[in-house]
Amino acid sequence: MVEDNLIEKLQQRFERSLKACPFTGEPEGLYAPIDYVLSVGGKRVRPVLCLLACRLYGGDESVALKAAMGLEVFHNFTLLHDDIMDRAETRRGQETVHVKWNDNTAILSGDAMLIKAYQLMASVPEASSARVNEIFSKTALEVCEGQQYDMDFEGREQVSTDEYLKMIKLKTAVLLAASLQIGALLGGADSFNQDKLYDFGIQLGLAFQLRDDLLDAFGDPGLFGKKIGGDILCGKRSYLRIMAEQLADEATKAELDEAFSMPASKGAQKIRRVLDIYKRLDIQKVTEEAIEKRFEQSISLLDSLDLDPEQKDVLTTLAHDLMGRQR
Amino acid sequence: MVEDNLIEKLQQRFERSLKACPFTGEPEGLYAPIDYVLSVGGKRVRPVLCLLACRLYGGDESVALKAAMGLEVFHNFTLLHDDIMDRAETRRGQETVHVKWNDNTAILSGDAMLIKAYQLMASVPEASSARVNEIFSKTALEVCEGQQYDMDFEGREQVSTDEYLKMIKLKTAVLLAASLQIGALLGGADSFNQDKLYDFGIQLGLAFQLRDDLLDAFGDPGLFGKKIGGDILCGKRSYLRIMAEQLADEATKAELDEAFSMPASKGAQKIRRVLDIYKRLDIQKVTEEAIEKRFEQSISLLDSLDLDPEQKDVLTTLAHDLMGRQR
Repeated sequence: MVEDNLIEKLQQRFERSLKACPFTGEPEGLYAPIDYVLSVGGKRVRPVLCLLACRLYGGDESVALKAAMGLEVFHNFTLLHDDIMDRAETRRGQETVHVKWNDNTAILSGDAMLIKAYQLMASVPEASSARVNEIFSKTALEVCEGQQYDMDFEGREQVSTDEYLKMIKLKTAVLLAASLQIGALLGGADSFNQDKLYDFGIQLGLAFQLRDDLLDAFGDPGLFGKKIGGDILCGKRSYLRIMAEQLADEATKAELDEAFSMPASKGAQKIRRVLDIYKRLDIQKVTEEAIEKRFEQSISLLDSLDLDPEQKDVLTTLAHDLMGRQR
Repeated sequence: MVEDNLIEKLQQRFERSLKACPFTGEPEGLYAPIDYVLSVGGKRVRPVLCLLACRLYGGDESVALKAAMGLEVFHNFTLLHDDIMDRAETRRGQETVHVKWNDNTAILSGDAMLIKAYQLMASVPEASSARVNEIFSKTALEVCEGQQYDMDFEGREQVSTDEYLKMIKLKTAVLLAASLQIGALLGGADSFNQDKLYDFGIQLGLAFQLRDDLLDAFGDPGLFGKKIGGDILCGKRSYLRIMAEQLADEATKAELDEAFSMPASKGAQKIRRVLDIYKRLDIQKVTEEAIEKRFEQSISLLDSLDLDPEQKDVLTTLAHDLMGRQR
């Protein structure tokens, strides 16, 4: 039997645990930014995935709480450092750490968070400790690789779809996948189920990131939470831009390049021109198909899991939630 | 029996192992800076301390090689990030990573190095793994705290001697101490010996850092390897400056403040004026006494170790080497 509203309950349990373990200490200049960034919130997707996987395989979620915290602290560490690199000024509607304090603080507090994340991951039961640590380090390194590819692509003339998908897999999907894998491991799942759940996380993560790209151009400004056109303004090589470059004829490609080379001072006009080209090339539909393909693949991976239909249903619901869909 | 030239042999063994395990991979933008910074070299103090402690307690140094590498990779990670924060342009006579590449590369490659360091620390024999990981994380966090205090002190009106000593203990001494402790643990030492060796490392580390402060003002430019007066130029609150502020009468204190407030453009004059005040206040002697006190304390801590005189002698030699002294 799966209890009602399990996902919300796990989310609340996680928030309570996080509040009970404040990241404060001396010197304040090091710890205050950590406390700030962790209390700003967010959807707590990774810890919930971890706790849920643990529960579904019969473990009590308390076994996975420290690991869930470690995953959330790690994720927020990457945001802190990424926001310096991308010169992002706000995150979740609040000033980023390097703006509220400065770059040095964001670098150093981020470093301390990565160490704190490792301390939390080391608090899992001893029998699972070595394997959890191994998965965590592998994943953490992959996330760094993803961020480097992302920065490399900014300066490149051309990026293939495969290269782009590899990048978002590393930058986004592997951490979602590892959260599920670690939770399942701590819950007592065998390695077949751990691995399948990991693969489910990869496909879901790809769908999730492609959807993020789509919403940047075609989202509802009220619901999306960020300004529309951010990727266009900063000339990011998103899935939409890569597909547009591939599908455009020579004249349209030239038009696209010209639109992207417009200065930031002509922001609104730049966004309008790029969106106009996207519409002509039907990029929204192309991207929606790419999302659907990964999403369906993720759901079909649930078939082979040793879980009863009701339990699989919780994962399906979570997948829909994450994609902002009704079921 | 301790073999001849053990320290040099361990140093060479470490260099060979490091070369055999190149930090290369894709994307190159992430890994090339890691390989660069690790092959520039340095004295490899921390890994040698680790390997030596392991050997002295009867372990084969191969048991500690991965941990020794982890400690060196961690140390170089801190240099990478500290150099961004301090805007340092050269390190060991070579361009720093943020100058040769850029800030973002130095941030991200540094992050990857911290993860790599954890991967290496996790490669120790399983029986010691949890404890090594615990010591390593505690130490790593302390090093971040030390760096934060160091930055905080730059902007402060006054810093006490105790505060300064606490800062250099965290920023420098704990990693030297933990290197010895981890090596001893892997070699089979009991916790009494591990802890005493840790304390030896703390006192030696304090002496070492105070000596670094001293050499910045009174070193031989040819031997020191850095330009004389760097700390004075950037207004760093070194041990010398703190003691000068404490020992100066009101008029001399005003003179000191004025000298330190001189612009960088008058660099040579600024250094001359500060050094002149240091000389009048006999700061060189005061600092030498502070160094001597810690150095003697470190040596006296060796008394209680369960090692034979010949083995203690190797540690005494290493301590003298580190302080640039003949025996």
